[in-house]
Amino acid sequence: MQSDRLTFDRSYPPIERPFTGFEPATLRAYLDGEFAETRNLVKGIITRPEFRHFEGHDRHEYRRQVLVWLRMISDAGLGRLFLPPELGGEANLGKLMAVIETVSFHDGSLFIKLGVQFGLFGGSIQQLGTEVHHRKYLPKVAACQLLGGFAMTEIGHGSNVQALETTAVYDSEHRDFIINSPSYSSGKTFIGNAAVDGQFMVVFAQLHIGAASHGVHAFVVPIRDENGQPLPGVTIEDNGPKLGLNGVDNGRIWFRNTRVPKIELLNRFAEVMDDGKYRSDIKSNNSRFFTMIGTLVNGRITLALAANSMAKSALTIAIRYTARRRQFGGGIQETLVLDYPATQRRLMPLLANAYAIDFAVKRLVRVRDQSRDGGTGARPIESLAAGIKAFSTWTAIRTIQVCRESCGGEGYMFANRFAALKADADIFTTFEGDNTVLMQLVAKNLLGELKDQLKEMNPGRIARFFLDQRLKALKKRFVGLTADSASLLNPEQQLTYFRFRESTLLLRVGGKFRRLTRQKEMDAYSAFTRLQPELLELADAYAERQVLESFLEAVARVPEHTLQPPLRKLADLFALYHLERHKGWFLENGFMPGKRAKAITSHVTRLCQEVRQDAVALVDAFGIPDQCLGAPIALG
Amino acid sequence: MQSDRLTFDRSYPPIERPFTGFEPATLRAYLDGEFAETRNLVKGIITRPEFRHFEGHDRHEYRRQVLVWLRMISDAGLGRLFLPPELGGEANLGKLMAVIETVSFHDGSLFIKLGVQFGLFGGSIQQLGTEVHHRKYLPKVAACQLLGGFAMTEIGHGSNVQALETTAVYDSEHRDFIINSPSYSSGKTFIGNAAVDGQFMVVFAQLHIGAASHGVHAFVVPIRDENGQPLPGVTIEDNGPKLGLNGVDNGRIWFRNTRVPKIELLNRFAEVMDDGKYRSDIKSNNSRFFTMIGTLVNGRITLALAANSMAKSALTIAIRYTARRRQFGGGIQETLVLDYPATQRRLMPLLANAYAIDFAVKRLVRVRDQSRDGGTGARPIESLAAGIKAFSTWTAIRTIQVCRESCGGEGYMFANRFAALKADADIFTTFEGDNTVLMQLVAKNLLGELKDQLKEMNPGRIARFFLDQRLKALKKRFVGLTADSASLLNPEQQLTYFRFRESTLLLRVGGKFRRLTRQKEMDAYSAFTRLQPELLELADAYAERQVLESFLEAVARVPEHTLQPPLRKLADLFALYHLERHKGWFLENGFMPGKRAKAITSHVTRLCQEVRQDAVALVDAFGIPDQCLGAPIALG
Repeated sequence: MQSDRLTFDRSYPPIERPFTGFEPATLRAYLDGEFAETRNLVKGIITRPEFRHFEGHDRHEYRRQVLVWLRMISDAGLGRLFLPPELGGEANLGKLMAVIETVSFHDGSLFIKLGVQFGLFGGSIQQLGTEVHHRKYLPKVAACQLLGGFAMTEIGHGSNVQALETTAVYDSEHRDFIINSPSYSSGKTFIGNAAVDGQFMVVFAQLHIGAASHGVHAFVVPIRDENGQPLPGVTIEDNGPKLGLNGVDNGRIWFRNTRVPKIELLNRFAEVMDDGKYRSDIKSNNSRFFTMIGTLVNGRITLALAANSMAKSALTIAIRYTARRRQFGGGIQETLVLDYPATQRRLMPLLANAYAIDFAVKRLVRVRDQSRDGGTGARPIESLAAGIKAFSTWTAIRTIQVCRESCGGEGYMFANRFAALKADADIFTTFEGDNTVLMQLVAKNLLGELKDQLKEMNPGRIARFFLDQRLKALKKRFVGLTADSASLLNPEQQLTYFRFRESTLLLRVGGKFRRLTRQKEMDAYSAFTRLQPELLELADAYAERQVLESFLEAVARVPEHTLQPPLRKLADLFALYHLERHKGWFLENGFMPGKRAKAITSHVTRLCQEVRQDAVALVDAFGIPDQCLGAPIALG
Repeated sequence: MQSDRLTFDRSYPPIERPFTGFEPATLRAYLDGEFAETRNLVKGIITRPEFRHFEGHDRHEYRRQVLVWLRMISDAGLGRLFLPPELGGEANLGKLMAVIETVSFHDGSLFIKLGVQFGLFGGSIQQLGTEVHHRKYLPKVAACQLLGGFAMTEIGHGSNVQALETTAVYDSEHRDFIINSPSYSSGKTFIGNAAVDGQFMVVFAQLHIGAASHGVHAFVVPIRDENGQPLPGVTIEDNGPKLGLNGVDNGRIWFRNTRVPKIELLNRFAEVMDDGKYRSDIKSNNSRFFTMIGTLVNGRITLALAANSMAKSALTIAIRYTARRRQFGGGIQETLVLDYPATQRRLMPLLANAYAIDFAVKRLVRVRDQSRDGGTGARPIESLAAGIKAFSTWTAIRTIQVCRESCGGEGYMFANRFAALKADADIFTTFEGDNTVLMQLVAKNLLGELKDQLKEMNPGRIARFFLDQRLKALKKRFVGLTADSASLLNPEQQLTYFRFRESTLLLRVGGKFRRLTRQKEMDAYSAFTRLQPELLELADAYAERQVLESFLEAVARVPEHTLQPPLRKLADLFALYHLERHKGWFLENGFMPGKRAKAITSHVTRLCQEVRQDAVALVDAFGIPDQCLGAPIALG
């Protein structure tokens, strides 16, 4: 290929790091928080020479590599963290999530493989099973002596889990369950660890006892023998090559008369007696299903986290490269690409998003952790996790794309990492709940809460409630219309805009839903379907408000005074950038004067210029190891 | 992998094709237009068994496959079409573009390989050279007996071609040019056909004669001998693995004292006499440079076309799949995914975009073709090609992403084609002119035209001009404010909105530019840089207006009365969807009442529902062969 050796200096120009009023290390310490030690431990592992990014093109080889990585992480003792305290774990969700967040800087497939093994497989045994299952399985899962997966999704039933077809019929004579896949479409699909490595699966199936059907339950089912061969009656197929994440062995599984002993029913929420009597504290199949599913919210949190880690990688690469690459210009030197207003306008709001999401997911983890001791209820956490998962993953897709484009042809080179980031993150918008489906779930929960509020009221109070809400809205609208433009930089005022949009959308869609179901006697499903676009807008407003709240809290809490100004600016940019996106809504409803909308745009442009000065330091503070970044254009 | 054979029926449910008021074949005939025969000829070739999509993972093998495909296309006589008439070609740009558009249904790498060989290599010899070059090279290029490339981009100079460093020094003693790469950053990079196949390159270099520098010129330079070995003094490196398009052998080239005879200067616009005297009808280096570059506008047209072909493939797959896939629902059957308002809201505007861009590129091709006989001037065509290239490629990226998401997990399977579409189309936003740079070019041209209008006026007339414009604008604004919502479905009224936005943005940014350069004495480069966001907004408005105009013309011209209603609806959707995107701008400037903005949103939602009825027929009319689509989820 090469005819002659050139002796030119091939180094890139230095990344220009302008003076900033804060130390990236100080900001990094704030971001790392109480789990800095865990993060550093993980970084120590994933930067070993054995963790060099996989550069081959054979997916079977890639899968073997990822399994080796997973075992190394487990051998370093990190698997133990996922155990319950009585088995030696720490039951510290924040620490687990710090592991996930850091691993995601390295490789998307490794993140998923780890998430499947410890989070979905181990996690579902922990959440849905009882002590006997914990003792039997979890230590081996943590040590990767037993590999497994989470067999929920079916070919015909992606998002609609309640409709899945796999059956588990109780045989009281033998005291076991007979698992069957009655059709092609009932095959489990996209199941991580299924195609090659998994020995066991947590299988979700419709439980039948005699003539009675009790809905979806989970069972621990062996699928391979000690030699890795599928067990009799179990059919496994490789899902084949994918757009990304080819280091994960996704597969399809069908069962034919696979018998598992009664003990393998994960029985935290329901039990089958030897004689076939069914017992559950949750009486309705529907409620039980949603309770079981609700325990799996951690998977969504990890996706929100991993997506943001990948967005941070993309931003680090793009911002460092545009801070060293010059193109065009009138002076002695060409102009740094990052000094162009167009570059700033594209990248800076995405940087603000990444910070905002970072704080939002951390808050979500705290709330989730506290809820186990009986804090926030299940529905608000389900909404929070769903909304932030959708917001983070959609944002990451856009961020990676814009970052790739900002790096021009260099961004297209495989070595510069966007190829992997883009391909691996792509499916995050779909799995663990399709974003569109999740956002509808958020909106339905919000409507449910509104309904609960109204339920206890008599008609007179309901009327007063709506009147109160309208008065509140009018008052806020008045404040919005009269306050001067400087108020746009007031966090309270920003939050008022976000909350006002959310509550207005909620009351409107709530009113429409009421009219459709009461006056027009439409069934709830049809009414929800009709109102889909409004529901999605509401969920979007909810997620943005949650993220802004988290960001403002994090800024208010920052201990180091040097960190206040840069974070304050980023939070302003986040708030105003999203207000700018929604200015049409505020304007068309008369909630904002035209002058204010224009002031928002001016502020965003100015903030982008100001944040640009801190931009390199802000991505340095993410603390992504060079070995993880990989991209030659971003190093040095 | 498989333990047991299952005998389930694996076929997908049928794609549901509701009754429509038109035949897809009739619409297809309208889209295919006068070059239907050429399209069918190409389809006949790319659906042969040898053209099965490449499914391997070795990029060297993929490159060999693409070269075989290229030769097959050339052997079928299609290379001949790219020749000038005196050498047996037809000089029919429309026909050439029909070839490009159809080939792009099959494989992105093949499109690029073909574009490099016939369009960039052959095309630059044709456009920048004279008869001697045509006779010497073009027949061999058309027959693929001589493979070559287009060596413009340098490592340090992506978009800023005028700053490239490669030198061509005239040696009057030997009557030849000495080509040199003086630095690492002067290496040619991302050059298609360079890494493996190319024997010759059209090399762009700074021409020096004695002490005089004449700017960038193009030379035909051999880089490999008959055995495929790099010639002495020529260093070639493989660019390595890329995010996509791995069937194209992109490479880097450095020259050390490579001599080419004087005759190899492509001398249509400039000539060097034996004694070293330099002659050109275009006196300024700058104008000559832009004249030369301007002849290469066809490359941008092909990218706009190919991007839209790939968007059409994605839409065909997503719309057919969502018209057979059911999920959730209250009735006997679950609901078709395409029947959800959220799906319609996501996919239908993108379908409208694909139709709009189809007509816009076809008009661009006609205008370009006529310009060779002295029609539209160079600057308007440059703007049109740049604006539509950026619009089409950005739209394609988004379309492919949304289509992938609409197909859920199935969309992530490599077999279902989104992986290739997404990866291959990604770089289209960057090469043949980075979209952001191109959009600035568009805006600068528009400002230039405005300046030309003003130049011939005395100060009094300039004042009157601005007054007239303002009055016109006020009148339109008044019409906009007073006309009722039904007028939103009036094509003339739609166009008025688009034109009004464009002209308002132009006059505003023109005024700002004038103030910055006159009153504040800022240099033009700095002023353009400062105004970048406004310039990009202007260019966006320009491109959208051009696309809408083309669409409306195509609807007005349609001969078959059954095609009027579906195309009319699509055009309405295109117009109102983009008005909806910009409603913030109209509202904040007081150019639209809030009620109108809300009416736009209602219209868009309703139009999405209506277009959904035609959606499958509308993608069937694209006429993409099943073999090209590939995706199992979209066939049948």
